[in-house]
Formats: sequence, structure tokens, C-alpha cells
Amino acid sequence: VIPLGKIAIVGTGAIGGYYGGLLAHHGHDVHFLLRSEYEAVRKNGLRIIDKEKPFHLPQVNAYNKPENIGPCDLVIVSLKSTMNDQLLTLLPPLLREDTLILTLQNGLGADEFLGKHFGPRRVLGGLCFVCLTRTAPGVVDHFAGGRIDLGEFAGKPQPRTQAIVDAFNKSGIESTLAQNLGDARWKKLCWNIPFNGLSIAAGGVDCAVIMASPVLKKLARDLMNEIQAAARRLGHEIPDNYLDHQFVRTSKMGQYRPSSLVDFQEGRAVEVEPIWGEPCRRGQQAGEPMPRLEMLYELLASLDSENQKSK
Amino acid sequence: VIPLGKIAIVGTGAIGGYYGGLLAHHGHDVHFLLRSEYEAVRKNGLRIIDKEKPFHLPQVNAYNKPENIGPCDLVIVSLKSTMNDQLLTLLPPLLREDTLILTLQNGLGADEFLGKHFGPRRVLGGLCFVCLTRTAPGVVDHFAGGRIDLGEFAGKPQPRTQAIVDAFNKSGIESTLAQNLGDARWKKLCWNIPFNGLSIAAGGVDCAVIMASPVLKKLARDLMNEIQAAARRLGHEIPDNYLDHQFVRTSKMGQYRPSSLVDFQEGRAVEVEPIWGEPCRRGQQAGEPMPRLEMLYELLASLDSENQKSK
Repeated sequence: VIPLGKIAIVGTGAIGGYYGGLLAHHGHDVHFLLRSEYEAVRKNGLRIIDKEKPFHLPQVNAYNKPENIGPCDLVIVSLKSTMNDQLLTLLPPLLREDTLILTLQNGLGADEFLGKHFGPRRVLGGLCFVCLTRTAPGVVDHFAGGRIDLGEFAGKPQPRTQAIVDAFNKSGIESTLAQNLGDARWKKLCWNIPFNGLSIAAGGVDCAVIMASPVLKKLARDLMNEIQAAARRLGHEIPDNYLDHQFVRTSKMGQYRPSSLVDFQEGRAVEVEPIWGEPCRRGQQAGEPMPRLEMLYELLASLDSENQKSK
Repeated sequence: VIPLGKIAIVGTGAIGGYYGGLLAHHGHDVHFLLRSEYEAVRKNGLRIIDKEKPFHLPQVNAYNKPENIGPCDLVIVSLKSTMNDQLLTLLPPLLREDTLILTLQNGLGADEFLGKHFGPRRVLGGLCFVCLTRTAPGVVDHFAGGRIDLGEFAGKPQPRTQAIVDAFNKSGIESTLAQNLGDARWKKLCWNIPFNGLSIAAGGVDCAVIMASPVLKKLARDLMNEIQAAARRLGHEIPDNYLDHQFVRTSKMGQYRPSSLVDFQEGRAVEVEPIWGEPCRRGQQAGEPMPRLEMLYELLASLDSENQKSK
């Protein structure tokens, strides 16, 4: 194990529970910040359900206040980005001057938000290529994948970036260094925008339904083409075969429900702005019209708002 | 009353019940073909609920087989267009060589279908600008509007076209002569495509919700602009102020649920092909990309298919 020092996981849902759990399982000093699941996790620990490598941590360091954790070396942010305003009060007790902040949140905007409030040079971003569902408090079902592409917000990779990647790889987390975090984020959007979006907008359908529908597959590809064109205008080159590969990858996911669909169906706010709104605005500002993404964004904003009302 | 001879109403839902009811109420010889509501209407007649001019026809000529009606002078088609295949067996018993067929169906394709199977020169089309909901068997709630724009499928208006328009006007049906049925159909689509479509795709919202949402209103206008551009390429000029007017008109409809939303929410097939599919194909064949309409069509096709599956 390569030491990462004292680690805080802010937001112990599917992503935080899984990656934080793996780090703790491999001997790292991990401290989990929780809210609604605090009691359950304090009592029963964390359980990762997996066909090949399931594990149970009967006891974890669980907290319901960041003050009780105190300053850390690495803060991993895995809160739903719809709650990012809360980071303004949750993070300060966890930070020293040299504390690194790694956000594992999807879409665009979290790096800038963290950079603005806590200083850009301590911010890192990680893109998680993983299929997880939190099935009960403290219980995360791992379906597929797990890789994290990890990069610096404010520039090129540094020795510290490589050190985290190495430590992750030694802890059961396949991890690669992203030379450019923007590239990595736009690539990730090529999956999240169509698959998370269409799973909601097409009526609550899983990946298997999308992949079985020529109409929805075509629409997913049309959306990817818009993202690719916008990314290109913003200096992020995404090759065609990367888009092709998303369909190969998705065909292996079976009846996986993207996390946004799970949020929607369970009545939680969907991450509409980082995944659809912000990419749409940035692409259009760069001169790419993106009519399909714009429409998907508009429909999801409305669907999410109606869904929240009926809660 | 200007005589229209023997009239058959094929499909006595909201549209057929309302307009056929008005014609019968004003003394015309109207024969209603029904299926699921046959028994109810035979017993209780037709009831039109309306703030200003409600009426009840305690006894109407109700049939469950077209053979029992026999040949007519005018056949009004108000079946859901998703069931148009049934017209191949329902219409022949109602037709003489000179019987006129007037379809009140929305969207594109019904004229051509009827023309192909029964001869184009007897086909007329009527666009209904009306807000109706069938609230119980034989009961139709009239919210607003009522005008029919009526034209010939195979050419310019004829004396017979004007005669029907005049007869309708004398029977409480505001009616105008459409010089070009294609123009009228594309104009009608400027409302049906966005409002019927978004009411479903944005999560089951009525017109008041769409009008209260700047995002959905903008999307409705973007869709109208695509329709206007496609219509222009196909020789149908729709002025900008016609598009503006649709929002004025809709703002008066209150919480009206477009008929497609009612169909969707009650588990019936939505008229996806005539309202979204066929206009999309014709516009794209004429060189207009229509990305938003295409996407709306694709989403509605999927939503409708999932909805039918879960029935």
C-alpha cells in the first residue's frame, strides 16, 4: 500500500461507499462522512456486493459531522453535485492548506466550483467508469467496471497525481492518469449525456432497452456526435472509435439503470446542470448549436422539476 | 339547415361525438358507428358538456356494424389514426360511388391512405381547432374552440366543399374553406407537434404547465420554427405571426390536456406516425434537418412503445 494519509469521503453513496470501501479494505485510513445513512453504517459497516470480489467492512470510521473528522490529507468528494452548495460548510473542517480535494462527480462545473471556493491548485478530478447501485443503507451493488481516470484541474499531472493513481491501483481501483482533465470529462460525457439522459427521457428504460432500440441507439449516437463536435471546438479531441466503443461497452452492461435514472425513479434530484446544462452552454458558447443536447437538457429540466414537485 | 344527406360518423370518440352530435342536434341524418361504447350510447345517447351550449341527445342512431348503416352521402372519419387499417373493412359498406369521405384526423398521411384505397377525388380533410375530452362513454367535455378548416385532398375547393362548409356553419360548427389542405395541415401541426408532444415528453404536463415554463415555451417555439422551415420547402407558407398566435391561443386553454396526452395517460396508442413521424420524414426528404422534431419523434415512439408494453 502506498500511503495516502488521512482520507475523508464526503458523501457515502454508491460511489463514495464503493471507492472509499475499497481504500479502507486495502488498509488506508478512511473516514466516511454520512447523513441519512450514518446510523446504519455506524452499526453495520459497508457491504460491497460483487460476483467476483465482494467484501464486507463490519466496522468503518463513520461520522455525521465533518468537525469530528478534522483536517485530512485527501478529501474525496462523492456527494451528488446537486448538493454542492453544502460543500461550503462541509469541507472547511476537513482542510489544511495542503489538503488535496478529489471530486469524483460527473459532468462539468464541480472542478471550477471547488477551485473557486478552496483554491484551484488543490483540486483534482476523477472520472469513474463503473456501474454501481446503492441497494440499501451501506450496501452497494457493483455490476461492472471500476476504472478512474484521474487528473489535475489546474494543469498537467504532477508527481502527486501519479502517486494517487499508483496508490489506487494498489488498492483494487484500476486507475489511469488523465493528461488533461477536460478531455477526460468530455469523453465521459459521451456516455453520460445519452445514456443517463435517454434512460429518463424515453420513459424510464435501462441500458438493455436502449441498446435493443434502433431508434434510441441512433439518437444516442446523434447526441454523441454533437458532444464530439462541441468538445473539438473547446480543444478536446474525441476520436470516432471512442464513440463506437461506448456501444460495445454498454452492450455488456445488460439491464443496468444509469445512476440518474435511479435518482429520478427514487424521487431524488437529477444532476441536470453538470451533465446536460453546463456542457450545452459551453458547447453553444463555443459556436456549436447542439440542438439535440439542448432539447434533452430542456426536457430533463422539466421532467426533474415535475418529479420533484410530485415528491 | 343545408342538407348533407345521410351521414356516417366512423369512430365516435371526442371528435366524432362532438361534431356528429352537433350535426344530429341541428337536424341532420347522422349515424354513429361505435365499438366499445356502443351499448352505452345506444342506451343513453350522447351528451356534450359545455359552459355555454351544452346539449343532450337522449337517442341517437347507434350501430356496431357498418353493414347496418349502409351506403351514405358523407362519411366522417374520426377514428384514432392508429387504427386506420380497420377502415379497409369499416368503410366499404358505407360507400357508394359518389360518397364523400371527410377525415377529421390529425397530422399527415390519412388523406393519402384514404385516397389510395377509396379514390383520391372523394377525399376531404378537416382540421379541428377544438379542445375536447371524452370523459365517459358517450360524454364529451367541450373546453374551447370548435372551428374546422375544411379542404379537398385532390385539388382546389369545389362547390361541394363550400356546401359542406355552409352546412357546418348552419349547424353550430364554425367552418372555413381551406384553399389548400396541405397548408392547413402544416399549420395545424405547428400546434400539435409541440403541445401534444411536449405534454407527453416533458412528463405528463398540461398546457398551463408548458405555458408557465420558459424552457418548454422556448422548446415549443424552436419546434415550430423547424416545422415552418420544412413547410416552406414543401410549398406551404406559414407566417411568423401564425406561430406567435399559437401561444396566445394556448394561454387561453388553461389546464387543457392535449388529446395525445389523454391517450397516453389512459394507456391508448398515441398517433406518433401522423403527427411526428410523417412530418419529420417529409421535411427531411425536402432537405430540412429538423433535429428537434426528429428527436421528439424518437422519444415519443419509445415512450409510446414502453407505455403499450406496460399496459
